[in-house]
Formats: sequence, C-alpha cells, structure tokens
Amino acid sequence: MWPKTIVTQTLQIDYPIIQAGMAGGPTTPQLVAAVSRAGGMGTLGAAYMSPEQIRTAIREIRELTDRPFGVNLFIPETFEVEEPNQEVARVMNGIREELGLSLNPTVSRYQEPFEEQLAVVLEERVPVFSFTFGVLAPEWLEQCKRQGTVVIGTATTVREAKVLERSGVDMVVAQGSEAGGHRGSFLHDAASNLIGTMALVPQVADAVGIPVIAAGGIMDGRGIAASLALGADGVQLGTAFLTCEESGAHACHKQAVLNSADESTVITRVFSGKQARGIRNAFIEALTPCEQDVPMYPVQNALTRDIRQAASKQQRPEYLSMWAGQASPLSRVIRAEELMKELVRQTEQVGRKFSHEERMQGARDRE
Amino acid sequence: MWPKTIVTQTLQIDYPIIQAGMAGGPTTPQLVAAVSRAGGMGTLGAAYMSPEQIRTAIREIRELTDRPFGVNLFIPETFEVEEPNQEVARVMNGIREELGLSLNPTVSRYQEPFEEQLAVVLEERVPVFSFTFGVLAPEWLEQCKRQGTVVIGTATTVREAKVLERSGVDMVVAQGSEAGGHRGSFLHDAASNLIGTMALVPQVADAVGIPVIAAGGIMDGRGIAASLALGADGVQLGTAFLTCEESGAHACHKQAVLNSADESTVITRVFSGKQARGIRNAFIEALTPCEQDVPMYPVQNALTRDIRQAASKQQRPEYLSMWAGQASPLSRVIRAEELMKELVRQTEQVGRKFSHEERMQGARDRE
Repeated sequence: MWPKTIVTQTLQIDYPIIQAGMAGGPTTPQLVAAVSRAGGMGTLGAAYMSPEQIRTAIREIRELTDRPFGVNLFIPETFEVEEPNQEVARVMNGIREELGLSLNPTVSRYQEPFEEQLAVVLEERVPVFSFTFGVLAPEWLEQCKRQGTVVIGTATTVREAKVLERSGVDMVVAQGSEAGGHRGSFLHDAASNLIGTMALVPQVADAVGIPVIAAGGIMDGRGIAASLALGADGVQLGTAFLTCEESGAHACHKQAVLNSADESTVITRVFSGKQARGIRNAFIEALTPCEQDVPMYPVQNALTRDIRQAASKQQRPEYLSMWAGQASPLSRVIRAEELMKELVRQTEQVGRKFSHEERMQGARDRE
Repeated sequence: MWPKTIVTQTLQIDYPIIQAGMAGGPTTPQLVAAVSRAGGMGTLGAAYMSPEQIRTAIREIRELTDRPFGVNLFIPETFEVEEPNQEVARVMNGIREELGLSLNPTVSRYQEPFEEQLAVVLEERVPVFSFTFGVLAPEWLEQCKRQGTVVIGTATTVREAKVLERSGVDMVVAQGSEAGGHRGSFLHDAASNLIGTMALVPQVADAVGIPVIAAGGIMDGRGIAASLALGADGVQLGTAFLTCEESGAHACHKQAVLNSADESTVITRVFSGKQARGIRNAFIEALTPCEQDVPMYPVQNALTRDIRQAASKQQRPEYLSMWAGQASPLSRVIRAEELMKELVRQTEQVGRKFSHEERMQGARDRE
C-alpha cells in the first residue's frame, strides 16, 4: 500500500490509478471491478449506453466488488442535424456498399439522454462520476455533492482546468495530446488543444488547487512515476487497460493496438465529428480528404454507427474506430489484476531509483 | 554533484542537462558557456551561422569556459528552388509593404554550406556535435569518432531513433511534440511525427541501446525528474534557456514567451517550409490558409528572411518567428547559472518526494 494522498483518500482506493471510462465496449463490469478490486479505480465508460444498460452494468459491477468505482459520461452539447455533404455521403456509401449495408440510412437517435443517464448514476449512488466534453450544470453538481458522489471533470488546457475548478468539481483530469479516444476539449479549437502531457500536467498543477489526474501516454510504472514527478496527484490509463483480458474491446481493435507502432495513431474527427485519437485505417484515409465537411458530434457519430457495427460483425478492422493513445505499443494481453500489480511494482521500482540516487547524494555529502 | 551516469561520463559534465542548440540567435557564447560552467552542457545553435561566424563563436565560448560544450547543425536535404505561388507571394508582399520592404526580393543564398560548417566544428575540436533533420554521412561520423567528438542525433519517432542508432551516433535526443522550434523529423510526415514526450521517451528507451536524451515540454525539475523516470538518461531544454539573461533571443521574442499561455503555440511550416513550433502571431495567421503551398525548406526560410530581419529591427513581434515549446509559460527571466542551480535543486526535491514515499513504504513493511 502506498502512502495516503488526497486522491486515494477522497476516492477511498489504495493506489491513485484510474482506469479510464472508455466508451463503446472496453469497460465491461468485469474490467471495472477487477481494477477496483486490485486497489485502483475502475470506470464504466457509459456515454453510449442507455439508462437501463447503465443500471444493469452498475449492478453487475456491485456483484463483483464492493470497492469504489466510477461512471463516465459525455456532457451533451447543442447540435444541428446536418445532412453530410455530397462527398462525405459518397465516400461513406462506398464503404456501406462494401459491407453490404443499405445506403443513406436514416438515423433515429443521435445520442443517449444525458439527464436520464446521470439520474441512474445518482440513483445507484455510484461513488465517483467523471465526465468529458464540458462542464456539469450546477444543479447536477450540487446533487452529486449532496449525496457524496466525487465529481471529476476533464481538461485539455489550463483554461479548461480553471473553468472546471470554478464549477466545483473535486478533481480534474489533465488530458495530454498523447491520449487515445476523444479529446475532452470544450473551449478550444483543434490547433490549441493538443498539449502534450509533459507540458500540460505541471501547468495545470500550478493553476488549480484541486487534485490533478494525469492522462495521455501513460502505460506503465515509468509513466506513473513521471506523472507524479510532474505534480499530478494521480493517473488515468486507458489504452493500457484496453488490451486486458477482461476488456470488451473488439478482438480486431485489441490486435491492432498490440501490433501498433508509435506512429500508428492520428487525431481525427471523421468517426464522430469530434476529435479523437485512434489507429489509422482505411476509414480514416478515405474520409480525411473531406474531414472539414464531416457533420459535427453527435451527428457524424450516429451516421457512422451502421458502418462501425457492420465492421465489428464482419471483423473488418479497416472500418472500425480503434481508439488508442500514442504509447499503444507498450500494451500487452494481461489480466487487469496482474496489470495493476505490475503498475504498482514498476512505479515503486522507479521510485527506488530516485531514492538510490538520493542515498548516493547523501553519502557524497557526508564525505 | 549527481551520481555519474553514462551521459555525464560520456560528456564529462556534472548534470545530464543539455541546453538545446537553438538556431537564430538565442545561443550566445555567454549562454553556452554559462550552462557549461554550471555543470550542464551548453550548445551553440549554429545552423544559420557562416563557417567563420561559427569559428569565432567557438573561440569566444572557449575564452569563457574550459568545460565541454556542443555545436548543433542542420543536416542539409536536397531541395528545388520553387517560386512561391501567387497567393503566398501576395500575402508575403502585403507584409513587406507594411514593413517598408521591396517586394519579391531575390534570394542569393538558401543555406549555409553544411560541410564547411562541420569542418570548422571538427577543426576546432568541439567536444560534442549534435544535429537535426537527418542522419550524418558515414565519413563525417567516422571523422567525429576518430577525434573523439561525441555525436548526438535527433529523433521524433522510434523508427528515426533506430536509424540514428544504426548510423553510429553516441546518443539520441527523443524530441516530443511539445518541443519548440523545428521538428527534427526526417522520415515522417506531419501526421505521424507529433508524438508527446510522455509517450515517445519510454518507447525510444526500449528500442535503442544508446543513451536517450528527452526533449519537449521540460522546463523545470519536475520535467527533468519525469524524464528520468520515463527512462531517459538526460534531458535537453530549449525554451527554459531562451528567456535567460544571456540568451540572444530578440526582446520581443522573450517577452512573448514570458507572456504566453499553454495554448499559445502552434506547429507551422509557414516561416521556413519545415514544421516548427512557435507562438501564434499575425504572420502565421496570414500564411496558414496557404500553408500547403509554401515552398519547402530551406527555400521558404530564405524567402522570409527579409521579413524576419525587418520585423526584428522594427520591434514587430507579429512578423517574427518566435519559437517556443508548449510549457513556455513556465519560463522566467533568470541568469543561466541560477537556472541551472534551480533545475538541479528542484530535481533533487522531486527525487526526495519519492524517497520519502519509499521510506514510508519501508516503515509500513517493517510494521
């Protein structure tokens, strides 16, 4: 067990290691529970789940562990339903033809109802609620506080971190540009929100008084120790848990992450209309020339759903959204409990390196 | 004094802290010598200097210190002299008008003669030669080895690091996407070479057997300790030294760095034809819409020289290339010797945090 810190005390966990709430399948109740049982904090990535699916998953997690865990949701933005322009539609229909899908499908629902999703999280008294894409409305934040739910927001810049702190969240994730999946940005354009973890974490730590959770490119004890050295109070890892045995990520997705190189990923908005980092594939290559014309989130996300679902069924990685961070080559197939043990052991090992140097320093001073 | 490491032993310095060889003015002999005198390694950014200017600067450094220092050069690439297209020429001429310059100036020389530059470095028996933008030709590398010059290459991906290791360099700088100034990339397109330091360093450390120097977003002891935790054997800092009193960076440039935010910088090729990170200003805003059409390096670099020189004389930061990394807000006005002391002290402080935790761990184990 590590010394108590503000993060481990507030979350009532042993190690300030959070498994990111990856939406879209990876965060099975088994994965979430395994991480929490091992002394970290598992998070259900519930953004794309219906309120009832969320309730079922929460209850499953509770059957597997009585340790604290989190649920992650996306803050909804107002959006306009736009038809994709001719070129975007043409490219997507070409892919639909290849997958044997009907062309120009109608979309019945663009996103799950956020307030109903959050209501379930509160009704079920989930210990921790984390969110991305914005700021939680004050009435919801108050309700979380009232019932003792810890609230964690996500920032990609100092300005976003300050806005989140002022809104009253308990902790903030500082998401560096290395991170896989969706950018949590809500104040910034693409050009200014891609700040590397090494640069972002110390600046956020200096700017806010609440605990900072480093995210982006952290895959092992080296990254955890580095994040703590930078001034973070905890870490959040996504890609490292994505290839765990308990992860529900598609087998093709896992394989692509395991086979990836440092140059494999790219930031793209072609899958969802919102910037996200994933492994470059044929879908990204095909849509990138008209990336500017892709409808905004969640419209494009809804429009690509049929393609992603068919690609999933047909085992076609070239049309899946395979989110991954820039350190994805450091991933491996492992049980989550084992990974947690390794992370703790490796972090201690890096710490020992410093204390060894410290001891040598002391020895020299005494000479 | 820190424990000897492969980097401090090879470079014969006290601390594995390298001041980056920023080209174009910041690295005065005074700055280089001050860093080396303080136990780090100063580097003359000599890429834009004539062979004779380099010789003079090396001799000035030697008058100020007998400690080891480095010289940094750009490996030349073959290039075609292209005329800028109409739109690029129109925008640049608009800026020239505002600065009172003649339009469509003729360029007499595109870059300094690399082989003559390097010949001076060798003749003057400079202890360390570092380079970016490529791989050093074998005959030059051999000559460096023969006379005991330590050679350091620059990589932005694992693949580049491996190519450099195979070429025979002694060490490799792993330049993360946070870094200010030119990207050292030589194998990769823009989309795949922007890997954050947190993700890049451990992957490069795993991939090569030679010492790895972390660069990108490192501004203080937190960044240094983090880099060492990630597996780096040393660090290279540019922006942190740019605002030092001894730095020759333009006063407007220093002020812009001191006033910057984490979102202030952008990667652009509008100044030189090659990707570089700098503070967004009117020049970047004006040229970005036609960035794709800007001639390649070093053609564009030569074509913007009159503008940058006039902007410098007229104190017009909006038309200067103000290179800076993503952690530039952590910069301050300080003497280089003082900064070096601070970096060493802060790094030890972070180390102590780990050893303290280690001690607590030990105490608990004994309970």
